[in-house]
Amino acid sequence: MSNSFGSIFRITTWGESHGNSLGVVIDGCPPGIKISQGFIQKELNRRRPGQSDITTPRNESDRVHIRSGLLNEITTGMPITLEIFNQDADSSKYEDIKHKWRPGHADFTYDQKYGIRDYRGSGRASGRETAARVAAGAVAKQILALFNIEIYAFTRAIGAITAQKINRLEIEKNMVRSPDKEAAVEMIALVQQIKSQQDSIGGIVELRILNLPAGLGEPVFNKFDAAMAGAIMGLGAVKAVEIGDGFGVASALGSQNNDIFVKKGEKAGTLTNHCGGVLGGMTTGEEFILRAAVKPPASIGIEQPTLTNTLEPTTILVEGRHDPTIVPRIVPVVESMAALVVVDFLLRQKCIENFTRKGEK
Amino acid sequence: MSNSFGSIFRITTWGESHGNSLGVVIDGCPPGIKISQGFIQKELNRRRPGQSDITTPRNESDRVHIRSGLLNEITTGMPITLEIFNQDADSSKYEDIKHKWRPGHADFTYDQKYGIRDYRGSGRASGRETAARVAAGAVAKQILALFNIEIYAFTRAIGAITAQKINRLEIEKNMVRSPDKEAAVEMIALVQQIKSQQDSIGGIVELRILNLPAGLGEPVFNKFDAAMAGAIMGLGAVKAVEIGDGFGVASALGSQNNDIFVKKGEKAGTLTNHCGGVLGGMTTGEEFILRAAVKPPASIGIEQPTLTNTLEPTTILVEGRHDPTIVPRIVPVVESMAALVVVDFLLRQKCIENFTRKGEK
Amino acid sequence: MSNSFGSIFRITTWGESHGNSLGVVIDGCPPGIKISQGFIQKELNRRRPGQSDITTPRNESDRVHIRSGLLNEITTGMPITLEIFNQDADSSKYEDIKHKWRPGHADFTYDQKYGIRDYRGSGRASGRETAARVAAGAVAKQILALFNIEIYAFTRAIGAITAQKINRLEIEKNMVRSPDKEAAVEMIALVQQIKSQQDSIGGIVELRILNLPAGLGEPVFNKFDAAMAGAIMGLGAVKAVEIGDGFGVASALGSQNNDIFVKKGEKAGTLTNHCGGVLGGMTTGEEFILRAAVKPPASIGIEQPTLTNTLEPTTILVEGRHDPTIVPRIVPVVESMAALVVVDFLLRQKCIENFTRKGEK
Amino acid sequence: MSNSFGSIFRITTWGESHGNSLGVVIDGCPPGIKISQGFIQKELNRRRPGQSDITTPRNESDRVHIRSGLLNEITTGMPITLEIFNQDADSSKYEDIKHKWRPGHADFTYDQKYGIRDYRGSGRASGRETAARVAAGAVAKQILALFNIEIYAFTRAIGAITAQKINRLEIEKNMVRSPDKEAAVEMIALVQQIKSQQDSIGGIVELRILNLPAGLGEPVFNKFDAAMAGAIMGLGAVKAVEIGDGFGVASALGSQNNDIFVKKGEKAGTLTNHCGGVLGGMTTGEEFILRAAVKPPASIGIEQPTLTNTLEPTTILVEGRHDPTIVPRIVPVVESMAALVVVDFLLRQKCIENFTRKGEK
Repeated sequence: MSNSFGSIFRITTWGESHGNSLGVVIDGCPPGIKISQGFIQKELNRRRPGQSDITTPRNESDRVHIRSGLLNEITTGMPITLEIFNQDADSSKYEDIKHKWRPGHADFTYDQKYGIRDYRGSGRASGRETAARVAAGAVAKQILALFNIEIYAFTRAIGAITAQKINRLEIEKNMVRSPDKEAAVEMIALVQQIKSQQDSIGGIVELRILNLPAGLGEPVFNKFDAAMAGAIMGLGAVKAVEIGDGFGVASALGSQNNDIFVKKGEKAGTLTNHCGGVLGGMTTGEEFILRAAVKPPASIGIEQPTLTNTLEPTTILVEGRHDPTIVPRIVPVVESMAALVVVDFLLRQKCIENFTRKGEK
Repeated sequence: MSNSFGSIFRITTWGESHGNSLGVVIDGCPPGIKISQGFIQKELNRRRPGQSDITTPRNESDRVHIRSGLLNEITTGMPITLEIFNQDADSSKYEDIKHKWRPGHADFTYDQKYGIRDYRGSGRASGRETAARVAAGAVAKQILALFNIEIYAFTRAIGAITAQKINRLEIEKNMVRSPDKEAAVEMIALVQQIKSQQDSIGGIVELRILNLPAGLGEPVFNKFDAAMAGAIMGLGAVKAVEIGDGFGVASALGSQNNDIFVKKGEKAGTLTNHCGGVLGGMTTGEEFILRAAVKPPASIGIEQPTLTNTLEPTTILVEGRHDPTIVPRIVPVVESMAALVVVDFLLRQKCIENFTRKGEK
Repeated sequence: MSNSFGSIFRITTWGESHGNSLGVVIDGCPPGIKISQGFIQKELNRRRPGQSDITTPRNESDRVHIRSGLLNEITTGMPITLEIFNQDADSSKYEDIKHKWRPGHADFTYDQKYGIRDYRGSGRASGRETAARVAAGAVAKQILALFNIEIYAFTRAIGAITAQKINRLEIEKNMVRSPDKEAAVEMIALVQQIKSQQDSIGGIVELRILNLPAGLGEPVFNKFDAAMAGAIMGLGAVKAVEIGDGFGVASALGSQNNDIFVKKGEKAGTLTNHCGGVLGGMTTGEEFILRAAVKPPASIGIEQPTLTNTLEPTTILVEGRHDPTIVPRIVPVVESMAALVVVDFLLRQKCIENFTRKGEK
Repeated sequence: MSNSFGSIFRITTWGESHGNSLGVVIDGCPPGIKISQGFIQKELNRRRPGQSDITTPRNESDRVHIRSGLLNEITTGMPITLEIFNQDADSSKYEDIKHKWRPGHADFTYDQKYGIRDYRGSGRASGRETAARVAAGAVAKQILALFNIEIYAFTRAIGAITAQKINRLEIEKNMVRSPDKEAAVEMIALVQQIKSQQDSIGGIVELRILNLPAGLGEPVFNKFDAAMAGAIMGLGAVKAVEIGDGFGVASALGSQNNDIFVKKGEKAGTLTNHCGGVLGGMTTGEEFILRAAVKPPASIGIEQPTLTNTLEPTTILVEGRHDPTIVPRIVPVVESMAALVVVDFLLRQKCIENFTRKGEK
């Protein structure tokens, strides 16, 4: 269960950083939908290592292979399997440190849980695992496009530098995926400086979803916001998630925080959107807004004290190939998780809608 | 599925604010554990309305009935059902507003999703639904006590007033559940002022868990922090969740944020705890720390513009009985959700441990 | 998980034979459907003890209480909870045998699994547990009625006496629920004779479902026939299940067994129905036919050798109140399980249909 | 969900008969267990086509590739992925019949459910799908070996010819997997005759499991026998399942059918085993016995009337490559499904056992 995600539209992923292949089985995809392999590849390229000089130099083409589930590019309702082979794995760097727990990494917790750990390239704890999520998310996005639902994310901040304006067209034009051209320049300079110090830096990713129908989500235990928070907090580097005004609500008054209902064309909407598009765990139809805090990568080129797995004090210098910040590369991963959550809720909602119509007869 | 929570230790809740009863079926509770009905009642009393003059005056004794699953107070492995009857429901106040959408409430989203809504006392969208969670959490806490795992939460802030010190013994001594005696006085004064204005105010709840074993949680899709974030964001009033340093990691360097492993007695631990007790989705064995932002209650005694469910503009004055802040009452609910998550992960972990030992033979 | 059944339309049951109450939470029921409490009661009456002189004399009115999920008799999409109190429990008969394993009963396996067992009236191993299933099934049947889907079951055989003709109108007119009036007379005589011998007897129940749409069920792991077999074999007394020609296919040729497709009005159907209405795990739209073998009740009034739970040889005479055959009372239970399976598959299918329509635009 | 099976030990399969590859992700396998790739291959060879002259001549080596989850042949707790490429697919034979519904096949029901169907080699409705089940089952069997649990199945009957004795050593020595050498000769002659008539024939498979611990299975909705019946009825060709005396219980008396408890060494067992090793849905520790009826393959070389998918009457002659009986090849598939069920229940049971011990302190 730990490697599956979703209820009706359900993905199951596999693969270690230095294993044979990574992949995903997508179960529950409705039939009759055209899927473009080119789009899946394009999304994988947005996440892949080596895409700019502020990411790890590991060179993986991340070419996707479709193993099942399509007939002439159309979904048949059968499971869709996508596979990506590892090509540039270099496990030699990990031999020296296989008995040491890297600070900030999951080496220690894997050892505690399983008593065994695939130390090569961090095994399944590597961010490389998210390639399978992005591949699946690229299928989900193609389904959402049928409903005109748009998902995008961007770098809101790196360190203390924050994007002040949001120009969606700007995002993919700069290495840090900032929607603010000027902030992007500063962010890149900061990352390069941090990189030259062999250190790393955190940041904030922001997610937006447009054109959601109202009423997605479940009212008690599988709320839209709860599912989304779980999905995004489930990315290794994320330590905080807020929706709408987020932590700002703690000091707000009810009279300020309530979003007033108003007519928008033939539909109801809200005048403000403090709630970030969710009330009572269900979407209002307004824009969904979420921000996530991303920690600085744990792998740094500075020597640190630590323990061996037999509790001997030692020091460690993590060589390997690292990202000075993971924020720009996590952007497509956040979008992918969001797409998976939305498709799953859409499917759940469809079954209620149809049934109700039947009941009305 | 929307009314069930957990995988092996799994609860299913029912009940509307003005319905017959609220309750919970707890499935998957291991056999042979002594359960005290008195403790369940005590926990319900911590959440119940009317407990102080800064909560709603609705008067519910919330007496718990045990319907199944125990033999002489010992669990048998069969489902444990707990039921609480509604006694002081007054639906008359809701007749006037049953066709209006209260701002900040889920009336609108229920209508969008289901096309029908139990308007009496907000139906299942009422905070009253959490009584069932607390009853179940009180069973979970009794299991955790066997492992010496302790869970507590408190009010970190109400509005701009923040607790500066944490004295666990202080928490249950004041109406706002502040761990800081001096801050409590200020918080209470603030809430009373807000109440006199017919308005409401938000705050921050903080959760701590002690004595967790290392290795709880799943490494990919059901991470300990992800599950906890989903559980707490799944409370109606919560809009943000952060773990450990939370949003602080966004401006931290890796060299600052990494927690160094050190020997603590015969075990490994970390020198600092920026990560809040979780690495790679699994517990480190250090204290688990989470903060959640709680919005101001949407029901206020101030007239607000809104729409009817036929999109006619109107105004609304929510009478009923309200809490000026929900922060103190959400404290036991946060603890309960945490207890449910931890018990479920403990059970999952047990099966791996046991199997591994077998394999070692 | 062991006390929940279904995926989208999901029930969770509780309650022991001599506990406080039995009940069921029905989660995932679509909104807007009218539910008759009277019909639920009528179905419970078909299963209840004491309904004729060939059933146990335990006297339970099995009055159903609706605890949640309805607003003016209409479903709201919230969980529907049904509760039945135990009134005529007499645990005194069980004190003497609480350390003995009754032959053919689950006493032994409960002890092995849990190390503790609610011996009073067999606890949750009692057939009384099925009252909750019938209550839930009565809700499911009301949903199916909107689709004109009809489910009925009957006694095909008791001992060596087999119904030779099927007159559906006859079934509820005789104590054994035989569709064949003449066979009914013989069956009743046989049961009375067996009863007078303090012994018990088995039989065969047959299930029919009419007006199923084609295409229900999943093609690989959740096939319609597999789910139905699991549901019916999951009744305590059932030891065998066959669909369509069942064991007869073992000696059939492909040229005999293949059902030929023919036009029936504007739809396709099959000329014969050897397959019992299922091909490749999905319904054909023809009648679904299933037969189940029901074992003789294990509780008999004849002294038998056995062991105590400390492995001492002893003898046992099961007093209590028993059914000489359980076949007639299992008929509504079989129907209920079938109704639950069908509703769940219908809901799953609706979401594909609805999505596909959207995709087609 | 339709392509996943199991709760804790959970497999997800993919792949069509003429697609790129077939495969399985095994999630929830405990860490620290040695897995032999050679054993997986050996099991696949028992199922593969072309293994004798009474099976389809399609020539597939079914070579298994391990994609993830092992470190030096030891499980790490991460998902184990096994992949098999299709090599001898010949879709040309299917072009002619892609608009016709083959009698006895799932062509019709796929069209009804999905509105689209991968007609090449029957797509996912092909028995070839079971290769992934056997690969997963071969991992499960290696886990069960640590507990000395043994699973085997054999051909009890083909047509009217029934094995009269069970010599386990004989099973793999003859083409039909009969445990009775003499019966094997007759069965083979029968199959060859049927094959020469271009027809097909059914049979009965029997499953035995030795050394099960007592207490596996859940008492209400996930009974051991119910799960097993669902698993085996979920094989495409199976139309009936019986456990222990099966349909024989219908005419048995309670005094005959009850299995008496007796001491066997230091443990309790039963004198007879009418119940087939299950009471109240949980294992007794005695041998588990199940028989399943297997229908004659639907693909025959005899011309049959049918409809096109636009409801035009036509005839069909299914060319392709067929098995005259599927009974011998289904034997390892039945074993595999059984192994998957048992491992899952073992893992569930471990968590109860461990917890109870803790509670006892």
